[in-house]
Amino acid sequence: MDHTHALQTLDAQLQAMPALATMQIRIDGYDGESLRLHAPLSPHTNDKGSAFGGSLTSLMTLTGWGLVMLHLQRHGISADVFVADSELRYRAPLYADLHATARLADGADWDAFLMSVGERGRGRIALTAEVALPEGGNAAVMNARYVAVVRR
Amino acid sequence: MDHTHALQTLDAQLQAMPALATMQIRIDGYDGESLRLHAPLSPHTNDKGSAFGGSLTSLMTLTGWGLVMLHLQRHGISADVFVADSELRYRAPLYADLHATARLADGADWDAFLMSVGERGRGRIALTAEVALPEGGNAAVMNARYVAVVRR
Repeated sequence: MDHTHALQTLDAQLQAMPALATMQIRIDGYDGESLRLHAPLSPHTNDKGSAFGGSLTSLMTLTGWGLVMLHLQRHGISADVFVADSELRYRAPLYADLHATARLADGADWDAFLMSVGERGRGRIALTAEVALPEGGNAAVMNARYVAVVRR
Repeated sequence: MDHTHALQTLDAQLQAMPALATMQIRIDGYDGESLRLHAPLSPHTNDKGSAFGGSLTSLMTLTGWGLVMLHLQRHGISADVFVADSELRYRAPLYADLHATARLADGADWDAFLMSVGERGRGRIALTAEVALPEGGNAAVMNARYVAVVRR
């Protein structure tokens, strides 16, 4: 399946958010199941020379948001998507570029989400996201729930 | 008690982090118990014209980090501070400037934290942070744990 149009739309949305301009985020890949976003380390270093925790969180939050937006767009649904809540674990300092991946959480179901959005005009979906370490494992992981509300 | 020096140090640390430059964060107040950081809305708007969830999270994460740094500095302790984990609830869209406040979580204890840092060279402390809505209540709340590791 060709995701080019949906990815162009997502990229335009990301580039239009001023807080993201310095983050230098770019879309790294989307296979219909998971979305990957990338950011270079340099604008995200903290006082310890590693990636700032808030940057990891921002990037994971955004990767999850983008995944929901792409899934809705592929089904022809125009909706606003909000993050509702999240839990984060920061596991190890990251001294390399930020690579975040978001996918469906265990037990979550795109079909039930789309059915709810179609029937009630809103739906809720649980995602998981992570920022990888170059040596394997994760710098940080996120579990989050997003709400979509159909635009009238 | 005069917190001028500790606040100047914190401000210099914040200004040195490139990802924060566009966020336009400034220290809004510190009374020894709570720290307040401020950011204007304009660099943080998302595709819906409200504050981006990742910006709220970044600001709350940073406010908690700053509170721990200030508390350690006031006690003459030079330590690295890391966020270990956090839970976030996004309650309502924010269409105004970002005002974040961080304070000790219920049941948490600065004295036990300082004793652990002094005896073992590291300690863990639970904080709570929020971003206020201009009409009252909160746009987002965070519960987070931070770890301090004494610099050798």
